[in-house]
Amino acid sequence: MARIAIDAMGGDYAPKTIVEGALWAAQEYGVGLELVGREKDINEELERIRNTGYILSDCGTKGHKRRIRIDLDKIDYTITHCSEVIGMGEAVGQSIRRKKDSSIVCAVQAVADGRCEAVVSAGSTGAAMAASLFGLGRIHGITRPAIAVTLPTMKKPVVLIDGGANSDCTPQMLSQFAEMGVEYAKLSLGIENPKLGILSIGEEEGKGNELVKDTYPLLKEKHENGRFNFVGNVEGKEVFINKADVIVADGFAGNIVLKVTEGTASMLLKMIGSEFKSDFIGCIIGLLAKPFLRRILKRINWEVFGGMLLLGVNGISVIAHGRSSSYAMKNAVGAAVKVLNKDINSKIAEHINN
Amino acid sequence: MARIAIDAMGGDYAPKTIVEGALWAAQEYGVGLELVGREKDINEELERIRNTGYILSDCGTKGHKRRIRIDLDKIDYTITHCSEVIGMGEAVGQSIRRKKDSSIVCAVQAVADGRCEAVVSAGSTGAAMAASLFGLGRIHGITRPAIAVTLPTMKKPVVLIDGGANSDCTPQMLSQFAEMGVEYAKLSLGIENPKLGILSIGEEEGKGNELVKDTYPLLKEKHENGRFNFVGNVEGKEVFINKADVIVADGFAGNIVLKVTEGTASMLLKMIGSEFKSDFIGCIIGLLAKPFLRRILKRINWEVFGGMLLLGVNGISVIAHGRSSSYAMKNAVGAAVKVLNKDINSKIAEHINN
Repeated sequence: MARIAIDAMGGDYAPKTIVEGALWAAQEYGVGLELVGREKDINEELERIRNTGYILSDCGTKGHKRRIRIDLDKIDYTITHCSEVIGMGEAVGQSIRRKKDSSIVCAVQAVADGRCEAVVSAGSTGAAMAASLFGLGRIHGITRPAIAVTLPTMKKPVVLIDGGANSDCTPQMLSQFAEMGVEYAKLSLGIENPKLGILSIGEEEGKGNELVKDTYPLLKEKHENGRFNFVGNVEGKEVFINKADVIVADGFAGNIVLKVTEGTASMLLKMIGSEFKSDFIGCIIGLLAKPFLRRILKRINWEVFGGMLLLGVNGISVIAHGRSSSYAMKNAVGAAVKVLNKDINSKIAEHINN
Repeated sequence: MARIAIDAMGGDYAPKTIVEGALWAAQEYGVGLELVGREKDINEELERIRNTGYILSDCGTKGHKRRIRIDLDKIDYTITHCSEVIGMGEAVGQSIRRKKDSSIVCAVQAVADGRCEAVVSAGSTGAAMAASLFGLGRIHGITRPAIAVTLPTMKKPVVLIDGGANSDCTPQMLSQFAEMGVEYAKLSLGIENPKLGILSIGEEEGKGNELVKDTYPLLKEKHENGRFNFVGNVEGKEVFINKADVIVADGFAGNIVLKVTEGTASMLLKMIGSEFKSDFIGCIIGLLAKPFLRRILKRINWEVFGGMLLLGVNGISVIAHGRSSSYAMKNAVGAAVKVLNKDINSKIAEHINN
C-alpha cells in the first residue's frame, strides 16, 4: 500500500482540516498516511474524529455541510512527531535551514527516506518548495523545479506551468517546464499528445516579451522534431477555451494568471449575490437560482483540484492551497495518488536527458 | 467646441459601428468630429443614419437593442478622405511608414495639426500606438508611452498601466508609468490622492520578479517624498478589491491581467448560461434571473469604459477595443472627452521633470 506523508501543521486551518482531509483521502483512495506534526495536536484531532465517527464538509459547494463517515480503524496511519512549524510569513531559506524539526521538513524526509511515496503540504508554498528541493533533490538534468497547476475550463482542464516557483526565468528553463508539463498532462489528464502553448500577449509568432520570443524557437524546434505538439502563443483570454492542454509561462506571469482568475471569479460571484439581493423579487429568484450557481461554483472551484504538483524534484510533492478545507486537502492527496506508480519522474528524466 | 479625430476605418465592424458610436458621442458630449477614412464608405453610413434617423444599440447589455435617435443636422462633423487602411495583422512599423494615407495616420495628423484635440481608433493597437507616437511625439522626459486601462471592480474602478504597450520594461519605465497613471486617475476617476500599487506575486516587499523588486524602492522613495501614496505589492486576486486605485505593471503582465479577466468572466457567464439550460426548471429560473445577470454584465462590461488612453504622447490618443460596438465607441470617445481641457499632458510633464 502506497503511503503519503502529510504536513499536518501546514495550512490556515491546520491541523483540523488537514488531518480530516488526509483521513478522508486515505479511506477514498486506499492509501496509508504518515501524519507529521505535533503529536498532541494530531492526536486531539484523531480523538475527536474517533468519537464522532465523521467529519463535516460542504464538498466544495460553499453551502450545506454533510457528514463524511470516517472509520479510523480501517485506515493505515502513523504519527511522526516533530516540534516545530514554519509559519506563512517566515523567510523561506532561513526557516528551512534552522527548523530541521519542522513538520514540512520532516514530512519531506519521510519521502527521502523511502517510507512514503509522496508528500502533501498546505503550508507556506515557499517553504514546501524549498524543503522539497533540499530534501529530495532535483531530477538529473533539471535546472529548476516548477509548479504545475490544473485549471478548470469550459471543457477540459488545462495544465499551467510554472504557477509561481520561479519569478525570473530563462528560455531554457521554460523549455524544461514545457517538457515536464507535457509529461504531467499525459499522466494526470490522460491526454496522449497534449497541445502545448506558451502564455503571451498577441497570437502570432514574434508577439510577446523577450523571454517568450526567445523561448518560442526552442519549442518550435522540439515540435518539428516530433517531441511536442506546439500550438504557439496562448493569450490570457485563450487560457480557458482549450487552445492548449499545457500552457508554459514564467512563474511570475503564471501566478498572475492563477490569482487574477481567482479574483475575477470571486468578484463576479459576489456581484451576482449582491444583484439578487437588490430587491425582494431578486431575493426569491436568487434562492431559486442558487442550486444552479452552486453547480458552477463546484465546476470552477480550485478545491476540486486541491493541489499543485512541484515537478522536477526527485519525488512527488504536492502543494495545497493555504486555505485548504478538508475537501481541498482530500483532493490534494488525490492529486498525489493520481501520479503514484506512474513513474512520472523517470519519464521526465528520460525526456530531459534525451 | 472641442473636436475629436475618428479613425473611421479601424475596428472589426468599421466603418459602421465606428461612425455610429462617434455620432452618438458627438450628440451626447457636445463635441465636433473629424471622420477620417474612405469618404465613400463614411458617406454611405451617414446616408443610412440620415434616412432612418436612428442607430440600434444594446447599450452594453448583450440583449435587446434599442433605438438611439441621431439628429445629423445638429452634429458638427467633417470628413477627411484618405485612401488606405492598416489591417489588424499588418507589421506595425512598416505599415505606419508606408501607408502615409491610412486612416489612423491621418487621424493622428489631425491632432498634430491642431485641428482636433484628441484621436480615437479601434484599429490595430500596435498601429494606433505607433502612429500616435510618431505623429504626436513624446512628452518631454517620457521614455516610453504606456496604455492606461480603467477596470471595473466591486466598488470603484481601478487604473491599470501599462496595459500592453511595452512588453519589456526597466524599473525607471515603471516608475514613469506610475507617475502617469496617478495623474490620470486623479483626472479621470476624480481621486485626490490615489493609492498606487505594483502588480506582483506575494504581498510583502521583496516578493516578485527582479523588475518588481528593483522598482519597489523607486516607488517607495517617491512615497516618502510625498509624491505617491504607495501601498506596495498588489497580487492578481487583489486587483478587484480596491487595494489600490492605480496598479503599475509591465505591459506583458498588465496585458495578461486584462485578458485573463476577460477570459474568466466570459467563461463564467457561459457556464451560468449552460447550467440554467440543463433542465426545464433551470430554463425558467434562468429567464427570471436574466435581468439580474444582465445588470452584472453591464457592470463588468469593458464597453462601458470603451477605450484605453495612450499616456506619454503629446496629445490625447484613445485606443478602443477592436471589437467595438457603437456603444463601446461612444464610450471610447467619452474617455477622450473626460480628459479634454484638463491639461493632463502638461501635468504629466510637470511631474516627470520635477
